[in-house]
Amino acid sequence: MNTLGNKLKVTIFGQSHAAAIGCVIDGLPAGFAPDMDRAAAFMARRAPGQNAWSTPRKESDTPEILSGLVEGRTCGAPVAMVIRNSDQRSRDYSGLKRTPRPSHADYTAVMKYGDDYDVRGGGQFSGRLTAPLCFAGALALQLLEQRGITVAAHISRIAGVTDAPPDFATAGREELEALLRKPFPVFSDEAGMQMRMAIEAARMDCDSVGGVIRCFAVGLPAGIGEPMFGGVENRLAAALFGIPAVRGVSFGAGFAAAGMRGSEHNDPFVMDGDRVSARTNHAGGVLGGITSGLPLVVNVAIKPTASIPRRQDTVDLQTKENTSLVIHGRHDPCIVPRAVPVVEAVTALTALDMMPE
Amino acid sequence: MNTLGNKLKVTIFGQSHAAAIGCVIDGLPAGFAPDMDRAAAFMARRAPGQNAWSTPRKESDTPEILSGLVEGRTCGAPVAMVIRNSDQRSRDYSGLKRTPRPSHADYTAVMKYGDDYDVRGGGQFSGRLTAPLCFAGALALQLLEQRGITVAAHISRIAGVTDAPPDFATAGREELEALLRKPFPVFSDEAGMQMRMAIEAARMDCDSVGGVIRCFAVGLPAGIGEPMFGGVENRLAAALFGIPAVRGVSFGAGFAAAGMRGSEHNDPFVMDGDRVSARTNHAGGVLGGITSGLPLVVNVAIKPTASIPRRQDTVDLQTKENTSLVIHGRHDPCIVPRAVPVVEAVTALTALDMMPE
Amino acid sequence: MNTLGNKLKVTIFGQSHAAAIGCVIDGLPAGFAPDMDRAAAFMARRAPGQNAWSTPRKESDTPEILSGLVEGRTCGAPVAMVIRNSDQRSRDYSGLKRTPRPSHADYTAVMKYGDDYDVRGGGQFSGRLTAPLCFAGALALQLLEQRGITVAAHISRIAGVTDAPPDFATAGREELEALLRKPFPVFSDEAGMQMRMAIEAARMDCDSVGGVIRCFAVGLPAGIGEPMFGGVENRLAAALFGIPAVRGVSFGAGFAAAGMRGSEHNDPFVMDGDRVSARTNHAGGVLGGITSGLPLVVNVAIKPTASIPRRQDTVDLQTKENTSLVIHGRHDPCIVPRAVPVVEAVTALTALDMMPE
Amino acid sequence: MNTLGNKLKVTIFGQSHAAAIGCVIDGLPAGFAPDMDRAAAFMARRAPGQNAWSTPRKESDTPEILSGLVEGRTCGAPVAMVIRNSDQRSRDYSGLKRTPRPSHADYTAVMKYGDDYDVRGGGQFSGRLTAPLCFAGALALQLLEQRGITVAAHISRIAGVTDAPPDFATAGREELEALLRKPFPVFSDEAGMQMRMAIEAARMDCDSVGGVIRCFAVGLPAGIGEPMFGGVENRLAAALFGIPAVRGVSFGAGFAAAGMRGSEHNDPFVMDGDRVSARTNHAGGVLGGITSGLPLVVNVAIKPTASIPRRQDTVDLQTKENTSLVIHGRHDPCIVPRAVPVVEAVTALTALDMMPE
Repeated sequence: MNTLGNKLKVTIFGQSHAAAIGCVIDGLPAGFAPDMDRAAAFMARRAPGQNAWSTPRKESDTPEILSGLVEGRTCGAPVAMVIRNSDQRSRDYSGLKRTPRPSHADYTAVMKYGDDYDVRGGGQFSGRLTAPLCFAGALALQLLEQRGITVAAHISRIAGVTDAPPDFATAGREELEALLRKPFPVFSDEAGMQMRMAIEAARMDCDSVGGVIRCFAVGLPAGIGEPMFGGVENRLAAALFGIPAVRGVSFGAGFAAAGMRGSEHNDPFVMDGDRVSARTNHAGGVLGGITSGLPLVVNVAIKPTASIPRRQDTVDLQTKENTSLVIHGRHDPCIVPRAVPVVEAVTALTALDMMPE
Repeated sequence: MNTLGNKLKVTIFGQSHAAAIGCVIDGLPAGFAPDMDRAAAFMARRAPGQNAWSTPRKESDTPEILSGLVEGRTCGAPVAMVIRNSDQRSRDYSGLKRTPRPSHADYTAVMKYGDDYDVRGGGQFSGRLTAPLCFAGALALQLLEQRGITVAAHISRIAGVTDAPPDFATAGREELEALLRKPFPVFSDEAGMQMRMAIEAARMDCDSVGGVIRCFAVGLPAGIGEPMFGGVENRLAAALFGIPAVRGVSFGAGFAAAGMRGSEHNDPFVMDGDRVSARTNHAGGVLGGITSGLPLVVNVAIKPTASIPRRQDTVDLQTKENTSLVIHGRHDPCIVPRAVPVVEAVTALTALDMMPE
Repeated sequence: MNTLGNKLKVTIFGQSHAAAIGCVIDGLPAGFAPDMDRAAAFMARRAPGQNAWSTPRKESDTPEILSGLVEGRTCGAPVAMVIRNSDQRSRDYSGLKRTPRPSHADYTAVMKYGDDYDVRGGGQFSGRLTAPLCFAGALALQLLEQRGITVAAHISRIAGVTDAPPDFATAGREELEALLRKPFPVFSDEAGMQMRMAIEAARMDCDSVGGVIRCFAVGLPAGIGEPMFGGVENRLAAALFGIPAVRGVSFGAGFAAAGMRGSEHNDPFVMDGDRVSARTNHAGGVLGGITSGLPLVVNVAIKPTASIPRRQDTVDLQTKENTSLVIHGRHDPCIVPRAVPVVEAVTALTALDMMPE
Repeated sequence: MNTLGNKLKVTIFGQSHAAAIGCVIDGLPAGFAPDMDRAAAFMARRAPGQNAWSTPRKESDTPEILSGLVEGRTCGAPVAMVIRNSDQRSRDYSGLKRTPRPSHADYTAVMKYGDDYDVRGGGQFSGRLTAPLCFAGALALQLLEQRGITVAAHISRIAGVTDAPPDFATAGREELEALLRKPFPVFSDEAGMQMRMAIEAARMDCDSVGGVIRCFAVGLPAGIGEPMFGGVENRLAAALFGIPAVRGVSFGAGFAAAGMRGSEHNDPFVMDGDRVSARTNHAGGVLGGITSGLPLVVNVAIKPTASIPRRQDTVDLQTKENTSLVIHGRHDPCIVPRAVPVVEAVTALTALDMMPE
């Protein structure tokens, strides 16, 4: 379904070629005055068409608040927001229901919804739906900030080029906030440069590349999360897989943990003044589903963009024969940079939802 | 919380040193006659102490059915099951609340529950709680089988040694069922031998190793799952992170997808007789959260066992000073083989819960 | 929270003086072409200002569909709908936070949300929020109709005047549908006349009257509902108490059952041709939380309108002293007639949500 | 389903003739030391066979704690409790599937679960399942008491005989606690005597009588509850309809409100020292779904016992012909007194679940 969260519920609606997309945010505390300029700036980070390395399409995602705010402050009622779609041209997409694009949701959506599925521009599976998610996340980020919690992500890897991460155990607010000011959020600008070159190379080849985003939450108190199925990992993973193109979610050392020995992977506790800390943070800030007070570290694998301007094999669902197709339209060789704020948004919404009142 | 599922709800209870552990399974169809011998055999796969390469501890996990079955058939009421704990010796575990074991839940549990946390044998965080989960999963596996769906997992990797996987696009029931008959479920027995040697090497070193489990579900119809936050990935990941020691969950090509190009990662559709299939299955059988009818492929990263018989650094929560500890008790250098049926159980329960009635 | 339902989720948003009110309906089947004229006619039944016996206020509740429909048919994505508020005048309502109106939510809302609560026109507690609920209900009613299920309610009682109900055991589609064509839905027009006179008398006295609405669902198959906390009664009651001014919900004979003897209240089963029926239907079509196939009968008590144009005692929350106030604005001496479609809407949404797929 | 609550989840299992009944309580705070003697005394109030006016059957409902307590204190893990069924004689109940008892769940259960439904002793629909509910409620009552909240119910009405209620606006802890010490909880002992005589008269007539239970919660802070579908009424009604034989739930003046005028029903606020109170409490302590700080008042209608030792008409589901049956076994002419602690238990569990942490 299209609703995220328990105490703080975000319901997303819209299709890329419907009249609008938007969201309803239920459960925000009353009396909160969101900084809408900051929210707009945050949303702009995921909008296409603003950087050399992303798609040239231009979205003007101006959120209109329908309810839930009185003179700029939340009143306890749900905050409803809509963004009008300017691009509702009825280019003929119907062929995609017959010859589904490889590695898109065309085929599975037709299997689920039948011929009524809105295939135009990806319909409800469009990456455009992450815009309202970012709006909700922008509000969550501001509320977390008020509690001293910073959420920020970097591009950990694109096309095999790896960024230099901070120390998981001691990652601090300052270095994370520096990320938020970067248009291409990496710690190593050298690595960032190589990543952008890899993206350009893929564009030249009419191809695409994927990557890994690593998101940190610093300042979370210890003791958040429930055991078993209510843990921080369960909740975050369930939320993050809601972002299109996510193929994997891991915490701390993640899949690399599988190759380590216990003596190497275990994080020895150590006092940091009066505070309990650990020498390493392979656990990524969660033990037994519950936060330890160390930085929360979550890794999100993003597959290479499925839309590439090449002829690809597929089938004709009507004639039941093999065929091929070419995807027209703009080519975005790497959505990883634009997915960074989406990962931050989803992480922030989930963290806020799990905080005690 | 300790409940998994929507229409099919499994509630797990118990601690390793309480009187019992068990589960309540609500939502099974009436008239189902579970094969209890097969369920016991399935549960035995996760029990410690039966193989040379696992812990020598002996659990006699005899499930007692308290309700929900009449003459061996489900009657519509919840199935409640308990397993008595034989090992309730009151060895003094209280020190662990004061000097928490690195990379265990001791510290976070104390932060959450305070001094009342039942630290004995890992309490509610003990791997022993996966026994009732396997019982519930055994029933789900039988119900899926009745619908022509096979769920089976192999050890994909231990300590860097990699098994030979089947073709994700064409993995068939026979080769998967062969796995289920193996005490050490790998496709390549050569790889399996090397993995066991790596485990033994870790045991000799008083150390531990982790690994990756890859689970397949074959026979799932196309069209299962909801978009956004109700997708197969969201639901499976949320469930799988409920297994202790899981650090990452990915689908199909998983984190490796992040290093591929679109032209390589995209799965071209192809007719297989009258059936829509694909040439590759990097997607792992899910597109846009919805099953494609190809084999579902999920990868689960397991960290190396945190309990190792070595002196490790930690802190004294009372004096707020650095100290060290040695963990006594049996040493299980690798829980990955025993985690295989648990991954199968959780996958089966989630798949069954998502099936239309 | 502001979300109703499990498989079919309706999220309501808006305040009476916000830019808009609306809803998001998630989980409708794809390929459904709602009849929007009928939906508008249904919504008009709850709109104020159209009958002599209701409030003179005029609402132009024109729903705008933002998403979820393509060429008039559902596409599987959530249907989002907004109604713009024309009446956003900023008459000064702030006094109501200081001197709360008796039997309104002013006081409890201030206790919950503090000074930021949007008190204007009742804010999120306004009866106006039932407009989007009716929109969603109109769609549910059409879908139920496609399955041969009719939901219709009559005014069972207003100000002590009682309508003649049909036989609960044999209430048929025709007599129920006749109700739906009546502007004042009663079986006995004589009783209806007296009710209207009682309403007018209350208006003349600057007072208000309440009543009871009885809603029927005919055509529901036997076997719907879950035991214990998932029964039809549990689900319907939870939903119906979401309608403002509802003070009680009962099934079949309801509170009168408490005064009957078992020999009188028991419904003897009897064959009706090949169908199992019963001679009476004091149970209201539900036994043990599960439908019996007889008409579902639910009674809903509506309190007299709290807004009356009289001086009433209250307190000054600032000075902590007793005081009094007069409520200005239009006077609606009885909301019961307008609440009829809302009860039908909520009953239909809940019944549809509980139907097997 | 058989689970109640959100943050505090109670899962009930068992059938009256299974090996056991019981519950799992998840979400209790750690460090709580329940007084088990008081819990047993509370449970004894619902057990049959202890009073002249109830059934002579003897249940020995000794709860066994399986997990969740360490040395008598909760440890954060779910509390699992079982009660062994002594009465598992396999008297032949199978006829009841063929000739369902009027106004029992036999028929609807067969429609839902088919022939596998456990009809023995009412199976999962048996009133016996309220024993574990009372156990869970007993713990909730103790936790509420620690926060200064008293929950107590009286028999408001049996067979038309009405008890004298306290003033809803000023009902105090002392008078409510006096109720809890009475074997037959009424305010007016004279009315209580007449109720018991009416019960005896019904017994002599081989018949049964119903009644109304009114439950109070005193000490709840103002501001608890959510608007719309998350209100105190929604949550309480959804829970209370889980008790077998409940046919109606109302708040404060309840269905009588429908016959009152606004000027009479409105509750004028008035200062009570520094505290906001009201002159009357027809609202029953809830406005707009949110507590006002006045006593919470909920009324629960209980139908007359369906099991009466008389020949009754029914149908033969096999031959599809009309027939009749006599219900053998003990005769309990009125379950209302025994239902009182169950209503208190469910009210307490729901109130505790809705309290902020």
